[in-house]
Amino acid sequence: MSTPHRVKVSLPEANSRGYEVLVGSGLFASLATALSRFCPAHRYAVVTDDRVAELYAVRLSRMLHSAGHRTDVFAFTSGEAQKTRETWSLVSDAMMESGCGRDTAVIAFGGGVPGDLGGFVAATYMRGLPLVQVPTTLLAMIDASVGGKTGVDTPAGKNLVGAFHQPQCVLIDPEMLQTLPDAHLRSGMAEAVKHGAIADAEYLDWIEDNVESLLAADPQALSRLIMRSVEIKAEIVASDVMECGPRKLLNFGHTIGHAVETLSGYALLHGEAVAVGMVEEARIGERAGVTAAGTSARLRRVLTRLGLPTSLPIDFGADAVVQHTRLDKKARAGRVEYSLIQDFGRPFIGPAGVWGHPVADETVAEVLAGVGSRG
Amino acid sequence: MSTPHRVKVSLPEANSRGYEVLVGSGLFASLATALSRFCPAHRYAVVTDDRVAELYAVRLSRMLHSAGHRTDVFAFTSGEAQKTRETWSLVSDAMMESGCGRDTAVIAFGGGVPGDLGGFVAATYMRGLPLVQVPTTLLAMIDASVGGKTGVDTPAGKNLVGAFHQPQCVLIDPEMLQTLPDAHLRSGMAEAVKHGAIADAEYLDWIEDNVESLLAADPQALSRLIMRSVEIKAEIVASDVMECGPRKLLNFGHTIGHAVETLSGYALLHGEAVAVGMVEEARIGERAGVTAAGTSARLRRVLTRLGLPTSLPIDFGADAVVQHTRLDKKARAGRVEYSLIQDFGRPFIGPAGVWGHPVADETVAEVLAGVGSRG
Ligand SMILES: NC(=O)c1ccc[n+]([C@@H]2O[C@H](COP(=O)([O-])OP(=O)(O)OC[C@H]3O[C@@H](n4cnc5c(N)ncnc54)[C@H](O)[C@@H]3O)[C@@H](O)[C@H]2O)c1
Ligand SMILES: NC(=O)c1ccc[n+]([C@@H]2O[C@H](COP(=O)([O-])OP(=O)(O)OC[C@H]3O[C@@H](n4cnc5c(N)ncnc54)[C@H](O)[C@@H]3O)[C@@H](O)[C@H]2O)c1
Ligand SMILES: [Zn+2]
Ligand SMILES: [Zn+2]
Repeated sequence: MSTPHRVKVSLPEANSRGYEVLVGSGLFASLATALSRFCPAHRYAVVTDDRVAELYAVRLSRMLHSAGHRTDVFAFTSGEAQKTRETWSLVSDAMMESGCGRDTAVIAFGGGVPGDLGGFVAATYMRGLPLVQVPTTLLAMIDASVGGKTGVDTPAGKNLVGAFHQPQCVLIDPEMLQTLPDAHLRSGMAEAVKHGAIADAEYLDWIEDNVESLLAADPQALSRLIMRSVEIKAEIVASDVMECGPRKLLNFGHTIGHAVETLSGYALLHGEAVAVGMVEEARIGERAGVTAAGTSARLRRVLTRLGLPTSLPIDFGADAVVQHTRLDKKARAGRVEYSLIQDFGRPFIGPAGVWGHPVADETVAEVLAGVGSRG
Repeated sequence: MSTPHRVKVSLPEANSRGYEVLVGSGLFASLATALSRFCPAHRYAVVTDDRVAELYAVRLSRMLHSAGHRTDVFAFTSGEAQKTRETWSLVSDAMMESGCGRDTAVIAFGGGVPGDLGGFVAATYMRGLPLVQVPTTLLAMIDASVGGKTGVDTPAGKNLVGAFHQPQCVLIDPEMLQTLPDAHLRSGMAEAVKHGAIADAEYLDWIEDNVESLLAADPQALSRLIMRSVEIKAEIVASDVMECGPRKLLNFGHTIGHAVETLSGYALLHGEAVAVGMVEEARIGERAGVTAAGTSARLRRVLTRLGLPTSLPIDFGADAVVQHTRLDKKARAGRVEYSLIQDFGRPFIGPAGVWGHPVADETVAEVLAGVGSRG
């Protein structure tokens, strides 16, 4: 293994050390060492899903056991449909059954689903256990594992119940992406495009220039993508841990995206829904006069080249989508706030430094229904 | 209403203002004003139980509505048996149903059960809503509402799932205790005795000298008790928000207490179980040579005068109790740590400033089984 690249996530709390995100090809093989160093514990509870477990859990347990770490694996059925309070209860109960106490650290191992669910278990088990994120999907590596958001879905919508719980460290081995299904690799790319769109126009160019090698899962291209995306996310998170300011920017594409994802019954992957969401929200921004003309068209082009959808499924009513955005966590005082960009790398900041832009439901409905010119 | 007495709870986090505990006879009548001042919000979700709702919810809603606050009441069946993940889910879902968003503040209204459960809803709803504690039992006033611990029980034991979530303020009106059943008033006294035992020998004397007026629910005596207990709890909490040091002291009586409470199937009230726990843990301390001789005898006398039990129910096996202490959150690395006192007002602090004293299971079993002299 080459020396891993390290990205520091600084936290503003006076008594917090922040934590490191380690990115290194082959890092998985030295997980035991990394754990001893960054999150020493009497025992480890690995929270994962059955697919990841099938591919990697035996190796993981063996490594940890031979390093002398007592380790139990708690695996649930893979998929967003399991990211529920019920699964959270079952995992917590199984941990109690096996006697995990406050001397246990949780390893959230897998994509964003085990990441969010394992993180929420760690946040709430005996009022909080130390947590290590070991993401294995692109989406989880560049987005879900960094920032401390944990939680589960409820029948009313995504991530409606959860907590902020920062990990002790995040350990990323890009080689684990070799086994990831193509659709999930593409889905993860949507968040990288988002990072370029909100924070770094050059990065967006680089992604567009490297679409082929990225989609071919070229390890070097993927490592570079992961590092830059993690840097961007870490910077934004560090500036605003509790999500009252700049962090809202990360919601670009997600107000519409979440609605679309829920309405599809999770037939659309998260990144696919976010791809649609970014294009639609760029169009909303163009219509509202805050986003430069041509932004949605450029996004549409990059996302299409990455094999991602860029418009609402035809059987989706605009009104149903609007309805769904109203329960969004970003809805305040009855109005829905959108995180918009002025141009690539230039977030929109409203009067008095307010992040987020309230948009009237009718405007959103018109844009979604395709009224007016398509970007 | 006389001007309320204010106790400040300072929090060590750099970016936290801490919060105030207001204690005042008749304060309930000016709740709307206090809320506008200490926790302004677009709307309020009152989480309570059906008994408290029956007694006070109509008045509360009316007051808040006429002050222009949009308010919804979410009441569940009273009792510890309802302090579960299921009730937490139902309340969260009902709040979603009625459209509560991030602009909502939660009012945890009632005893420690609505306090802990409403607090956990606030901690986890959309990853955290502002919270106000309005305790209505003595136990909740002097203990549960201050300190930010929230959570629910699981089949494996009490408070095994939860989060730290500090309120914006705590509003206490001792007059609400006039409707509290006698057994619950006595149960609350156990925690006041604990405060005296761990932090202030004079306060313990004062309680013993005022047993009659306290049990007669004399408003002045109760106000004084609440204020002193809140001060003690606030001081300890401020010194150790995350419970890694001095705060452990508050667990005095609770390692055995929780085991006894669970084993009784909650037939024993929390304070009753803690009364037993304090006497037994004082005896454990005496046996271990850390607690002054006569401590358990004195505790037994005060608690008996308060009408509280002081020994294990005869049908409880010592081994079953020991077994239960092993899942306690205070069990680390397989050993159970007890928070002991040297003498009244003098906590035991081990070598190297370590709080908590590991005690071998056999010693605990012997003491519980009554082997050796009764204190
Ligand atoms: N917490 C956050 O800040 C944050 C940010 C973005 C997304 N999310 C959440 O992340 C979730 C989506 O994450 P996801 O797309 O990773 O979903 P996921 O965890 O379900 O993973 C997708 C699929 O890939 C499989 N898989 C995982 N790693 C693999 C590997 N290395 N090889 C082969 N198969 C593998 C999984 O078993 C699963 O079937 C959503 O629930 C979303 O809300 C959270
Ligand atoms: N969070 C903490 O730090 C902390 C500390 C101590 C205890 N607790 C928790 O508190 C709980 C016990 O609290 P509790 O004893 O208040 O239980 P509780 O909330 O069940 O209240 C006891 C009973 O009194 C009724 N009641 C409440 N206020 C009343 C009033 N003013 N008039 C008439 N009836 C009233 C309730 O309906 C209930 O039936 C336990 O679950 C315990 O774990 C938490
Ligand atoms: Zn996302
Ligand atoms: Zn207690």
